[in-house]
Amino acid sequence: MPSEDELLQMLHRALGPAAVVGGDLVVGIGDDAAVVRCPEEGRQLVATVDMLVEGQHFVLRPGAFTATDVGWKALAVNLSDIAAMGARPRWALCSLALPADRREVVLPPLYRGLGRLARAFGVRVVGGNLASAPTLAIDVVLLGEVRRAMCRTGTQVGDRLYVTGRLGAGAAGLALMTGGQPLHAHLARALVSAQRRPRPRVREGLALAALPDGVVHAMCDISDGLARDVRRLLGGLGVTIWEDALPIPDAVRRAAEACGADPLRWAVYGGEDYELLLTAPAAAEPSLRAAMEREGMQQLHCIGEIHDGGSYLCSRQGGVSMPLAEEGWDPFRVTENRRQVVAGAS
Amino acid sequence: MPSEDELLQMLHRALGPAAVVGGDLVVGIGDDAAVVRCPEEGRQLVATVDMLVEGQHFVLRPGAFTATDVGWKALAVNLSDIAAMGARPRWALCSLALPADRREVVLPPLYRGLGRLARAFGVRVVGGNLASAPTLAIDVVLLGEVRRAMCRTGTQVGDRLYVTGRLGAGAAGLALMTGGQPLHAHLARALVSAQRRPRPRVREGLALAALPDGVVHAMCDISDGLARDVRRLLGGLGVTIWEDALPIPDAVRRAAEACGADPLRWAVYGGEDYELLLTAPAAAEPSLRAAMEREGMQQLHCIGEIHDGGSYLCSRQGGVSMPLAEEGWDPFRVTENRRQVVAGAS
Repeated sequence: MPSEDELLQMLHRALGPAAVVGGDLVVGIGDDAAVVRCPEEGRQLVATVDMLVEGQHFVLRPGAFTATDVGWKALAVNLSDIAAMGARPRWALCSLALPADRREVVLPPLYRGLGRLARAFGVRVVGGNLASAPTLAIDVVLLGEVRRAMCRTGTQVGDRLYVTGRLGAGAAGLALMTGGQPLHAHLARALVSAQRRPRPRVREGLALAALPDGVVHAMCDISDGLARDVRRLLGGLGVTIWEDALPIPDAVRRAAEACGADPLRWAVYGGEDYELLLTAPAAAEPSLRAAMEREGMQQLHCIGEIHDGGSYLCSRQGGVSMPLAEEGWDPFRVTENRRQVVAGAS
Repeated sequence: MPSEDELLQMLHRALGPAAVVGGDLVVGIGDDAAVVRCPEEGRQLVATVDMLVEGQHFVLRPGAFTATDVGWKALAVNLSDIAAMGARPRWALCSLALPADRREVVLPPLYRGLGRLARAFGVRVVGGNLASAPTLAIDVVLLGEVRRAMCRTGTQVGDRLYVTGRLGAGAAGLALMTGGQPLHAHLARALVSAQRRPRPRVREGLALAALPDGVVHAMCDISDGLARDVRRLLGGLGVTIWEDALPIPDAVRRAAEACGADPLRWAVYGGEDYELLLTAPAAAEPSLRAAMEREGMQQLHCIGEIHDGGSYLCSRQGGVSMPLAEEGWDPFRVTENRRQVVAGAS
């Protein structure tokens, strides 16, 4: 069994120079707590924590998740929360629980996955905790900073609803991983990668937060599914989502066809897309687009309109509207919901 | 099953006004992340995370832990880490994993226990996460601030070793809870309470941190046992701990007698005392004592001396010295170590 010192050395090897004291990091991994320099006065400090549990959020087996994927994804879901506040991610702590006999196999790749994504976004891993438990669980704490955080409240009647990137890839990737029909290899790789190693929209969140106050009314990320997350922006108002405006990539449609599933269901109820969802007045559209048009940034899609009625899904050209069901990821009904999502059952 | 809104209402009822937005709290529970105002520039931000797992750190059953105890203790162990940095605790996030069918029974008392201790130390619970898992685990993140954090490095040859409060109560409480012999009720209550609801030395840490730079050389808390934690202050140096100087209360000695255990073993190897352990030059003793003599503060005990040899346990009057064993709480050998501690086996 490695000693505490050997464990710390392993951690530093996996995390690289970003975990070494210096710059804004005063005390790093190995003391009672991590110490960093406060951002300048007047800034806001943003903090989030999100836990992934084996058997609920991932399984570790060939064809599903590797420990490297789990480390990556555990940070990615937190980066997505920080992005949804328009904040810059700065420091992470990683709290792990796992059976003692899996420690040496799981920890190095898990920390490498975490460290790789951390470096990609300039995040320093500054501390954490290690506990013994029958089930593997990874709880990442992420701290960020922002001038003025964007939050979920503030949506008004007449606002447009926007989403970054694309929808349905998280659910498609899950379906392909959990026994979906085979698909052309490079299509499958991209979709499964969206599920295993999501790319949080940190740069997009920063670009939106840099707009003048009041351009964006409210923002959140899509983790539990568009249908569930949009309600968090509504504050009792209603929304009409235009199904023909949803950015569902061709790969998702082809995967749905191969799996006998409905791509629209995946996009609306599937979850784990880790895109940003926001409301803004219609007049703000040019400002929003200009903010997003910097090099490499994800596209912004206008997918609906806020009103004071109920919430519906319909075609932009009108026609039959379907009430937006209260479905999506529920932390306490994971298996059931995943089965629904994967099987496309109603 | 309560909705997300009902869950948030329950949380706010349990946590009280400290969780309501206002003052330094800009965005609280219910958004993608918590937002607080940064402390003034030049301050240091301190962050720690510590997880308690059912069956490893506690059992929920009559005579052992209640859910209220678990909520309290999960914050207490983090407060102790923040105290060990000399920092002021400010904001907590609580990440919970538990089986869905225990949610309604466990959550309200657990948050009440957490909220009660948070209020006692002026900590605001600003966010968290809820996941489903086969085993109950509670992971508390605690943020604090300090002018200049005290850390584990800096001990010099000739320094004295000091400890706050008393030693052995954590192990005595555990022994009494896990089937130790009966003891006079009010003695047992105090010891079991030290195990269930430890009182972290936050005020003592702040008093020590307010001393001029260089008075305290290094500091940590005692969570894994004096013998294990003292090594974290030594940086390769040695220590002689005077067994007759250890602050072992009479109640601990009587509990040990009733359980057929060795009170010295409990004090040195037992762990979970959540006291502060520090090194300082002998000449600093009057400053240290003056800092601690404010009303209600725990006493400071000089319990040993730093040198450049090995680490020993002996009487202050000399006599036989015993090497300090590398024992104590190891997160991956919990059951074994607890059995040793409780049974007093070597």
